[in-house]
Amino acid sequence: MTHMLTTIGFDADDTLWHNEAHFRRTQARFETLLADYAPADALHERLLEAECRNLGHYGFGVKSFVLSMIETAIEVSKGQVPSTVISELMAAGREILTAPTELLPHAETAVRILSQSHRVILITKGDLMHQERKLADSRLGNFFHGVEIVSNKTPETYLRAFARHGSGTGQGMMVGNSLKSDVWPMLEAGGFAVHVPSEITWALEAAEEPTGHPRYRQLSALSGLPALVAGLST
Amino acid sequence: MTHMLTTIGFDADDTLWHNEAHFRRTQARFETLLADYAPADALHERLLEAECRNLGHYGFGVKSFVLSMIETAIEVSKGQVPSTVISELMAAGREILTAPTELLPHAETAVRILSQSHRVILITKGDLMHQERKLADSRLGNFFHGVEIVSNKTPETYLRAFARHGSGTGQGMMVGNSLKSDVWPMLEAGGFAVHVPSEITWALEAAEEPTGHPRYRQLSALSGLPALVAGLST
Repeated sequence: MTHMLTTIGFDADDTLWHNEAHFRRTQARFETLLADYAPADALHERLLEAECRNLGHYGFGVKSFVLSMIETAIEVSKGQVPSTVISELMAAGREILTAPTELLPHAETAVRILSQSHRVILITKGDLMHQERKLADSRLGNFFHGVEIVSNKTPETYLRAFARHGSGTGQGMMVGNSLKSDVWPMLEAGGFAVHVPSEITWALEAAEEPTGHPRYRQLSALSGLPALVAGLST
Repeated sequence: MTHMLTTIGFDADDTLWHNEAHFRRTQARFETLLADYAPADALHERLLEAECRNLGHYGFGVKSFVLSMIETAIEVSKGQVPSTVISELMAAGREILTAPTELLPHAETAVRILSQSHRVILITKGDLMHQERKLADSRLGNFFHGVEIVSNKTPETYLRAFARHGSGTGQGMMVGNSLKSDVWPMLEAGGFAVHVPSEITWALEAAEEPTGHPRYRQLSALSGLPALVAGLST
């Protein structure tokens, strides 16, 4: 069967560059700072609850994460948390926002090679300013035909982005580390989806694998992507 | 002289709906909550300094504002601010995020009338999720041919948006309450810009008026916009 694949969409965080590791490091610091009030696993659970609860108001990204940490710190300490700890949590957030962007292995090569034969686009959630800064810092910006920073990733998100920058999801492929955000909604929108698992994934991005779906593929690393795309295009 | 005006861009906050009033109300609450530590005008000044300092990291929007309030509260109280105050500041932020969207006078009429003869687009700064929620809440969504939520408003922002959704800035007009964000960069991008002053404007949006610029217009209210556009199109 021949598929005319014209457009490849890439997720950004933990697909092209490290992200979750920064959050985990900050969360470890959060657990140390609040160790007097609750054990680490309880803190972890309360923070995740706060993130979940706040997602609809705050959306994704570092600022949301910091606000959820502050909220949890006040809750678990019954208001006893010193303001120095709150200042440290805000400083930790600013550290994530200003951290250098570290590309994942093969990210630059995969994007560069595919940009020679296909339209490549970036579709990412998060804070506008932070994602733009990371993209500039990554030096990958010139390879992309289009960049969409979105509040959430639904089938409609992909229908819109691939219509705008490509020739529709039917001739499109989405590549990312999140089954929930990158794979499932793209399959529902009629496109190909490639899961490239990252070492660590945020709990709120977990989902089942769409095993057996004819347009689903899995790769252990981005190095295999050009060959996979070539195989689908002939 | 005949101008073929094809595309009208609207700013959102304080152009189509109330926004700054929510921030002012929250700021008044901030000043009351911290009255023990500093007089209102000093608090005001310190908060503005923090907002300025954080803009490059946090960008625009409610979450940034809340983080700057918390930072200022800790600073001015030399760490003595009780966590109940910090919780109240976060609650005030969530109130802004969930407040009903109140349209400004004539906003619905102006957008609806112009959408029948022109492409109308929305170009706004702020948090992705919050701006999307306000747009849905406003019931103006269907009138817009395109929506761009951006991290900042520069001449390039307008060149890109009017190329994408219209026929370029040369045949475009931007309508907004901010001389700094809506008017100047659009004039620099070669388009028309209409200033519709709002009752209150954020200090960081202040700028000089481009008096005498051939593509600059001022309106006291959106009710005058259809006639202004018609005058430029014939």
